[in-house]
Amino acid sequence: MGPGDDCAVLPPCREELCVTTDAVVEGVHFSRPAFSLEDVGHKALAVNLSDLAAMGARPLWFTCAVAAPALAVSEARALARGMGRLARANGCALVGGNFTRAQVLSVCITAAGVAPRGAALLRSGARPGDLLFVSGVLGEARRSLDELAAGREVPKGDRQRRPVPRVELGLLARRFARAGMDVSDGFAQDLGHLCRASGVAAEVDVDTLPGKGHGLAAALAGGEDYELLLAVPPARAAAFERACRRAGERVSWVGRFTAGRGVKLRQHGRLLRAQRGHDHFVDHPADGA
Amino acid sequence: MGPGDDCAVLPPCREELCVTTDAVVEGVHFSRPAFSLEDVGHKALAVNLSDLAAMGARPLWFTCAVAAPALAVSEARALARGMGRLARANGCALVGGNFTRAQVLSVCITAAGVAPRGAALLRSGARPGDLLFVSGVLGEARRSLDELAAGREVPKGDRQRRPVPRVELGLLARRFARAGMDVSDGFAQDLGHLCRASGVAAEVDVDTLPGKGHGLAAALAGGEDYELLLAVPPARAAAFERACRRAGERVSWVGRFTAGRGVKLRQHGRLLRAQRGHDHFVDHPADGA
Repeated sequence: MGPGDDCAVLPPCREELCVTTDAVVEGVHFSRPAFSLEDVGHKALAVNLSDLAAMGARPLWFTCAVAAPALAVSEARALARGMGRLARANGCALVGGNFTRAQVLSVCITAAGVAPRGAALLRSGARPGDLLFVSGVLGEARRSLDELAAGREVPKGDRQRRPVPRVELGLLARRFARAGMDVSDGFAQDLGHLCRASGVAAEVDVDTLPGKGHGLAAALAGGEDYELLLAVPPARAAAFERACRRAGERVSWVGRFTAGRGVKLRQHGRLLRAQRGHDHFVDHPADGA
Repeated sequence: MGPGDDCAVLPPCREELCVTTDAVVEGVHFSRPAFSLEDVGHKALAVNLSDLAAMGARPLWFTCAVAAPALAVSEARALARGMGRLARANGCALVGGNFTRAQVLSVCITAAGVAPRGAALLRSGARPGDLLFVSGVLGEARRSLDELAAGREVPKGDRQRRPVPRVELGLLARRFARAGMDVSDGFAQDLGHLCRASGVAAEVDVDTLPGKGHGLAAALAGGEDYELLLAVPPARAAAFERACRRAGERVSWVGRFTAGRGVKLRQHGRLLRAQRGHDHFVDHPADGA
């Protein structure tokens, strides 16, 4: 049973259920008209699917609560189109929702996926000696945000308005990795979270970071990359890289987990000071080195 | 695994999962300081648990996404206290959440419960001849809203700020009823939804409505009652009423489902015109007839 009743009714499930919730708010996560309503729908679902990807979970269903000052049918359709395309591509069904009035548009999604018992990638699984991989390219979303804020033309389909959740990579990675997390608040800050959860330190060679061409600050602390951080034991690293190549998934080996605490960033062998990522309750995220 | 990772990880589940999502927004569902933050936390969860109650589902877990301009630790604690007390009373665990900035406070909750296969109460199950029961008292929430809006003192714990989800009644009712729904937008309007979903009509004797002392308009169309509408086959009605009495659950027999369409309201045997309930995108809900 899908939308229309007081609840969706979903069949029993033999695997573990991974559940996440995330909202996008006008003026915080998107602005109009820089974002079309299709972009908003896409992004709202993408940030949730990225959390499922980080766990190595297969997306199954989502609920969607929309708050808006007023929404014409054509606008609601545009929102649904952006969401629907991404949902179909990931085999994920809308099972319930809610509409309410509000002063600004916001979309709150709760998404669920499944993973076999004990297979979900946690933040706490990294061990000293594991290699640190990152997917895709860092800093693009931040670069687009700056361009849009400056009123410059940004080609459609950029990572700021159309982030790409790494769902297939997450499913592949759970066969090789010991820990996973997605990069939403900035590479350095999120890596710090993973280290703390695992009780380890990490050393990163920033010269190997994919996307440093967008500026080191954007790559390290830009935020909204929705790429995956993965801790892979050295014995499985070559097989992991081969599997990624075959699947067409870009991953880069950028560092190593060690005993200790904190994140050490090295450039040309020299230690940089720690980077801050996006702080939810500060207007202008720190972006300098 | 609860909060702290990218997703909550929940054990496999042999029953059907009932899922609902609902948000409360400042200026729409609550105002401050008339509502304390404990009231807001309570109400945000209560409206979701009411949807689970309407299905006869046992609450299991919920996620909570908070959007706020700024939230002091003491304020976040107050919100959590209001939510936590109700969650504990209903055996429901917070498994994940999200914080984001926004201009006004809103709380979006997704809640899940379980019911044995095929046991969930749907809106579509009512049949001609079934008796219509309603729980508790109608119109109290609307009466409180009017009092608060007029700046009058309303004793704490009223149904506007502290709605009571009928979770235990829902679990009891699924043994007797054929259809269920909660009253959030007003008795007459929600009964209309139930009739449409079931392909039946309903006749209500408004003289038997619990809460008509709050004014007939408030009882019929006040909204936010969070009471249950239940369709019970006549052969099970006496046993249902006995079970409710034993459990201390107040229910009133207020009408009957018939073949046809629409909702007929009779007072002293005379037909009233149809009542409208709360319309989400209209500022001032119609409340008079």
